[in-house]
Amino acid sequence: MKYEQEVKNKMKEIHSISNDFMKKIEKEWEMRCKPIHSLGELEKIVIQLGGIQGTVSPKVNKKAVIIMAGDHGVVEEGVSQTGKEVTRLVVESMTKGKSAVCVMAKQVNAKVIPVDIGMESDSQAEGIVYKKVAYGTKNFTKEVAMTREQCAKAILVGIEVVKELSEQGYDCFAIGEMGIGNTTSVSAICSAYFSQPVEEMTGKGAGLSKEGYSNKLRAIKKALDLHKPQKTDIFDLVSKIGGLELAGMIGCFLGGAYYKKGMIFDGIISSLAAMLACQLCPTCKEYLFPSHCSKEPSAKLILEEIGLPSYFDLSMCMGEGTGAVMVFSLIEYALACYNEIPSFSENKIEQYVPFEDV
Amino acid sequence: MKYEQEVKNKMKEIHSISNDFMKKIEKEWEMRCKPIHSLGELEKIVIQLGGIQGTVSPKVNKKAVIIMAGDHGVVEEGVSQTGKEVTRLVVESMTKGKSAVCVMAKQVNAKVIPVDIGMESDSQAEGIVYKKVAYGTKNFTKEVAMTREQCAKAILVGIEVVKELSEQGYDCFAIGEMGIGNTTSVSAICSAYFSQPVEEMTGKGAGLSKEGYSNKLRAIKKALDLHKPQKTDIFDLVSKIGGLELAGMIGCFLGGAYYKKGMIFDGIISSLAAMLACQLCPTCKEYLFPSHCSKEPSAKLILEEIGLPSYFDLSMCMGEGTGAVMVFSLIEYALACYNEIPSFSENKIEQYVPFEDV
Repeated sequence: MKYEQEVKNKMKEIHSISNDFMKKIEKEWEMRCKPIHSLGELEKIVIQLGGIQGTVSPKVNKKAVIIMAGDHGVVEEGVSQTGKEVTRLVVESMTKGKSAVCVMAKQVNAKVIPVDIGMESDSQAEGIVYKKVAYGTKNFTKEVAMTREQCAKAILVGIEVVKELSEQGYDCFAIGEMGIGNTTSVSAICSAYFSQPVEEMTGKGAGLSKEGYSNKLRAIKKALDLHKPQKTDIFDLVSKIGGLELAGMIGCFLGGAYYKKGMIFDGIISSLAAMLACQLCPTCKEYLFPSHCSKEPSAKLILEEIGLPSYFDLSMCMGEGTGAVMVFSLIEYALACYNEIPSFSENKIEQYVPFEDV
Repeated sequence: MKYEQEVKNKMKEIHSISNDFMKKIEKEWEMRCKPIHSLGELEKIVIQLGGIQGTVSPKVNKKAVIIMAGDHGVVEEGVSQTGKEVTRLVVESMTKGKSAVCVMAKQVNAKVIPVDIGMESDSQAEGIVYKKVAYGTKNFTKEVAMTREQCAKAILVGIEVVKELSEQGYDCFAIGEMGIGNTTSVSAICSAYFSQPVEEMTGKGAGLSKEGYSNKLRAIKKALDLHKPQKTDIFDLVSKIGGLELAGMIGCFLGGAYYKKGMIFDGIISSLAAMLACQLCPTCKEYLFPSHCSKEPSAKLILEEIGLPSYFDLSMCMGEGTGAVMVFSLIEYALACYNEIPSFSENKIEQYVPFEDV
């Protein structure tokens, strides 16, 4: 249990963000020439970033989108429209700046960093961070997806990636993934975690025929019967029916909290990872920014469990961090307003008074 | 009834967007290397823009935020925290690039164009488009806010502003406003239009004391009793209890449809204007893009009536077009994905099949 202990030791050193700086920024906002609280979540974004960075002048200079990539043994059961090789092909297209997330990241000057945490094959493409824990998970309808120590090791990889990028000056992260078959794993985890019928937690993923959908349901039910994962034990849950990229993303969120960086979670896989990170370490939530609400049926439950809203509702189900990357734009709008809107006195307008009594 | 007839003549020349180009763009999206429909509303944005512009390669080169500014006689009744002079002061700060909307527009390279359609005083500041129809509305608790012909003239001003900016090469517009007291007018119109109790349609606007809030309710009830505005007659509704900037914004939306431009509506005042424009001319809806859902109590009803979702939910109630301006970012993400994501064949990945049968 060496790695698991290491994760637990790290979590002990995760601390709350600075309430003091958050209050100072709240006061700053009140001086800005505009109705009190009228920029809503944009004001909260700056307040939270200030709390995270421990300053009244938070900044986001270098932005990264970390893409955890891993394969899933359960794809053998016919739960996905495409084969596992697509995980590698899409990751390779990321290194050429050609996938959807790269196109979007370019708009907001963010760097996309694909991490091979568990792809089934090794890629020769330049630009992939090689941190392979295993060559894909096992088929969880037959055996556990990974060992408990592999799960812990994958979490440590996530923490390490955030550490390395922080040292390179990155100060805000969007967390995405690539892994054919990973919505099957998400549905299995959500059924177990929320004690919900498999049918209600299972969607079409990236598109699925009737046959594929019933394969997906059957595989999930078989896995839950076989492993009886414990919802109160995140290592048990993730090692039995999770994915290596999911564990890596949990590590990213823990790493963000450890190294005091703002962390944006994306759609279904990424938000599940954020939720599980908060289960391991509730303080983690203070470092999190939501993005959009996925079309997958468990998405709303996950957001409720985390206790954060979604900023966007764009009916997206793309993965790759494509929802999260757009939050960088919101952060830029928010920081621009905070830094550039003049005070009431500069504009020679009488300050609005906050009323709470209506 | 010269101006009213002129508006009605214009509306007869508003035509549907091109279904043909929309279908072509839909086919184009299916070739992009990503799961079918996975970019959700972003895909629809490009499809709609293509339909509007009549091309498979829609572009947004020059973006403008039109700010219609007008004053409200009803402010005399103590319905607002600030005085009417704030309308002019904020509009003047816009000419210096200092208001919230200017700061945000700069992020996305959009030009803010304030239009004096009905401010109570004349401003000497450079950069305000002078199109004054009247020096503010009358106090609608005592008389009609404006005459029916003034209402029609203000609508024509909106159409004209879009015409002039289109001639300058602007090809996409966000529509905002500035007018102290205008949420009082919105609540009055919504009560009449939706046949809802005044209390349920009335919010705090930009912040209001208990006393201010009861003044607001009293003023609205008095106006509705006095004028009995006809919800089926938009000219009646707006002239009796509306605002000059509201009428101007209705004109902008009609103008956008007339000159075939994408039009983004903002929060409560702007979305009400979009709704009323669609009542006058249902085809107008095809040119509209939503943005966020305001915190005002009537916001959801208005969006439902228009029949469009909201992209953002950021608890904003700032006005000035601050929600709408962020949609320019979504449009840029959407166009970038459409133009830059390679096809399946370029990426050597087998095309995803659309399944509708699950």
